Amino acid sequence: MKILGIDPGLAIVGYGLIDYKMPRFTTLSYGAVTTPAGTSTPKRLEMIYNGIEEIIKLYRPDELAIEELFFNTNRTTAIEVAEARGVILLCAQNNGVRIFEYTPLQVKQAVVGYGKAEKKQVILMVKTLLKLEKTPKLDDTADALAIAICHAHTGCSKIRDYFNN
Amino acid sequence: MKILGIDPGLAIVGYGLIDYKMPRFTTLSYGAVTTPAGTSTPKRLEMIYNGIEEIIKLYRPDELAIEELFFNTNRTTAIEVAEARGVILLCAQNNGVRIFEYTPLQVKQAVVGYGKAEKKQVILMVKTLLKLEKTPKLDDTADALAIAICHAHTGCSKIRDYFNN
Repeated sequence: MKILGIDPGLAIVGYGLIDYKMPRFTTLSYGAVTTPAGTSTPKRLEMIYNGIEEIIKLYRPDELAIEELFFNTNRTTAIEVAEARGVILLCAQNNGVRIFEYTPLQVKQAVVGYGKAEKKQVILMVKTLLKLEKTPKLDDTADALAIAICHAHTGCSKIRDYFNN
Repeated sequence: MKILGIDPGLAIVGYGLIDYKMPRFTTLSYGAVTTPAGTSTPKRLEMIYNGIEEIIKLYRPDELAIEELFFNTNRTTAIEVAEARGVILLCAQNNGVRIFEYTPLQVKQAVVGYGKAEKKQVILMVKTLLKLEKTPKLDDTADALAIAICHAHTGCSKIRDYFNN
């Protein structure tokens, strides 16, 4: 099963593509779709849609896993992230990729085995599980791989098919 | 100048299309794109994109005016609204419609002449200025017409070209 993990944002959308044949992971691709500061929001959203669509068309993932949004202290950023997230959901929908949502707690639980794990523990586990030679440059990319692993681990047995209701 | 005013939401996207030739308004169309509860979010976003695109292709507006998002007490709703808003911005961008943003205060100021005007005052002014026989059924539609009027009034002299920077 090919899984595309996504960590959404307006400036950086982290992505991680893995193939999971229990119990083995193959890492197909990872990186980020980035949009330059100073570019208009609609233009940045267009770049995000096109960037994600390119990845989907190239790798044809079966499923997309993305984090549920919660509000943090930075409210302006949260609006931007949600706008980008809407565009990513639309892109998956238009390309027939099934979508699954996980909370940060579920991701940490699935990857590290502990819901309150620190970010660096998550990154280390991602690197270990996927046998990566180097730690991904961006935290957003590591987070995207983590959510893809989370979906692989939890998705097969008790899938949280949040959207397909 | 044909202006498409938009009041974004996941369940209801109000829209109002006016033609403004100073000082005269012609109301071309108004209503709402609605999505049924119980439908998945990605599917609803798809319906919103397609609904707005249909209106754009039919009426070919020159510019789109939309409210800036602020966080209110209902945080879950705010995320949904922002996701829908992202998809609407993408749709305008893909169809070459220029986008302008206004705060609720700017809209009230432009339509009623008083930034703290009540909702019913705004609706009454919309009905009066556009010579509508009936009040629009949905507040979201009235709000969309109000923001279109706001853009007509303020857009010509001191356009707040928020995005085209």
